[in-house]
Amino acid sequence: MTEIFGTIAIVGIGHIGSSISRRVKRDGLAARVVALETKPEHRQQALALGVVDAATGDAAEAVRGADLVIVCTPISAYPAVGAAFAPHLKGGAIVSDVGSVKQAAVRDLGPLIPAQVHFVPGHPVAGTEHSGPGAGLVDLFDGRWAILTPPPGTDAAAVEKVASLWRAMGSAVEIMDPGHHDQVLAIVSHLPHLIAYTIVGTATDLEATLQQEVIKFSASGFRDFTRIAASDPTMWRDVFLNNREAVLEVLQRFTEDLTALQRAIRWGEGDKLFELFSRTRAIRRSIIDAKQA
Amino acid sequence: MTEIFGTIAIVGIGHIGSSISRRVKRDGLAARVVALETKPEHRQQALALGVVDAATGDAAEAVRGADLVIVCTPISAYPAVGAAFAPHLKGGAIVSDVGSVKQAAVRDLGPLIPAQVHFVPGHPVAGTEHSGPGAGLVDLFDGRWAILTPPPGTDAAAVEKVASLWRAMGSAVEIMDPGHHDQVLAIVSHLPHLIAYTIVGTATDLEATLQQEVIKFSASGFRDFTRIAASDPTMWRDVFLNNREAVLEVLQRFTEDLTALQRAIRWGEGDKLFELFSRTRAIRRSIIDAKQA
Repeated sequence: MTEIFGTIAIVGIGHIGSSISRRVKRDGLAARVVALETKPEHRQQALALGVVDAATGDAAEAVRGADLVIVCTPISAYPAVGAAFAPHLKGGAIVSDVGSVKQAAVRDLGPLIPAQVHFVPGHPVAGTEHSGPGAGLVDLFDGRWAILTPPPGTDAAAVEKVASLWRAMGSAVEIMDPGHHDQVLAIVSHLPHLIAYTIVGTATDLEATLQQEVIKFSASGFRDFTRIAASDPTMWRDVFLNNREAVLEVLQRFTEDLTALQRAIRWGEGDKLFELFSRTRAIRRSIIDAKQA
Repeated sequence: MTEIFGTIAIVGIGHIGSSISRRVKRDGLAARVVALETKPEHRQQALALGVVDAATGDAAEAVRGADLVIVCTPISAYPAVGAAFAPHLKGGAIVSDVGSVKQAAVRDLGPLIPAQVHFVPGHPVAGTEHSGPGAGLVDLFDGRWAILTPPPGTDAAAVEKVASLWRAMGSAVEIMDPGHHDQVLAIVSHLPHLIAYTIVGTATDLEATLQQEVIKFSASGFRDFTRIAASDPTMWRDVFLNNREAVLEVLQRFTEDLTALQRAIRWGEGDKLFELFSRTRAIRRSIIDAKQA
């Protein structure tokens, strides 16, 4: 692969940040990768794993001379971390991120970006339930989507450069309006996580013996929810706090649909149940056809 | 492996029935496997796949001389199918089933079983979202649980014989009261399926362009629900109609918990969200420790 950037600074070397740096290093997509990381143990771990060339807790040092800065922290850290590194960016640099709520990235990072720096918010639709630099995967983005939400008027060459990095990491790139992104993700990601957290939480509240049996017989459906509900709590708290309106709206639809199903069960309306349970098979087939299964 | 039964009759040669017959044939767990199947195309398919020795739509012919009859149809078919084969059972035979609601099996099959025949209802906690005889898997029960719910006073030797068949097919066997089984399964299996059907149904109702995007970006959580929601509609209609009370009770708990989460999102209660999202990780760890992940 050819080098796309000189120096990349990764802000927050966790699951996603470390997956990016692993891929960039393996394929030589940048000459140098620096981590800006507040946790000393994560800095040490990233260096020990050899996934970055340098790691520091000093924002000025981290972004000095960086051609691309990718913010990979939870969304709640954006204002502080952005304020810390933004004044030290060089002219012509690009700032991007990987956060799951794009309106929040525009709101919290946008105003901090100096005039001569390009801002290309992004979101790789990928990830596992694991956290930390040790959980990074070099092939995490292969065959997945990376959504970019550049503000109107963003330099096209800067957008294309960020897009080419994601393509080099194996992803297909989609350009989207941040508000639309947040609405789509509320459906495909935020609601599923909220539901999974709830159902696993409901099971957590059961008396101890029943809970043991839930664990024992979890292969019958429950297990699939626990994987999702093991995702990083800070990241997900921030998602729900920052995509509140879209999540509440889709949650309202879901609750209505669930109430209708509940009513059909209570009144023994078999035909209604059968009809719904048949309809949902079509979406699964579409996902398999779209090679996202 | 040693032969456990002379002749086994499988009533309904679909995903589960065909998985049993494949394993029994491969490992020689019975001298002969006969399918009782109303659909001619499934009879043909099962014979063509070589997973049964004979296939018929005639109940008397199917169970004549059978040492074990395993009912693998949807629960709604139990009364008719049971009435059809029960008069032709030989003395000392055992009747079992694989249905997901054990009180329904006791209610619908129990009264039909002749005095000299043993009744050992069962439920293998295993399965995929696929249907039909072609979807059978020889290793479907490996490392999974098989729950037996024999009525009080059932011949211990008959129970042990059925248990030994499941063990030979790779499962661990648990004996349980049918009501308790239905309560546990309402939590670990029926509620997760209901939720998955609902969320996928909610997505199905979206306008066409949004639905295309849901399919495109489904890897971010939604996808895991679609697999569950692609399960057999007849089977699941029957589960909800027949385990109504237990499902409605756990659904009520779930809805309360979801409402609490919704409220925390609306009011921006980050600490509450973080605390719940942290608690749910523990259950995932328990499932991994229990080797059910």
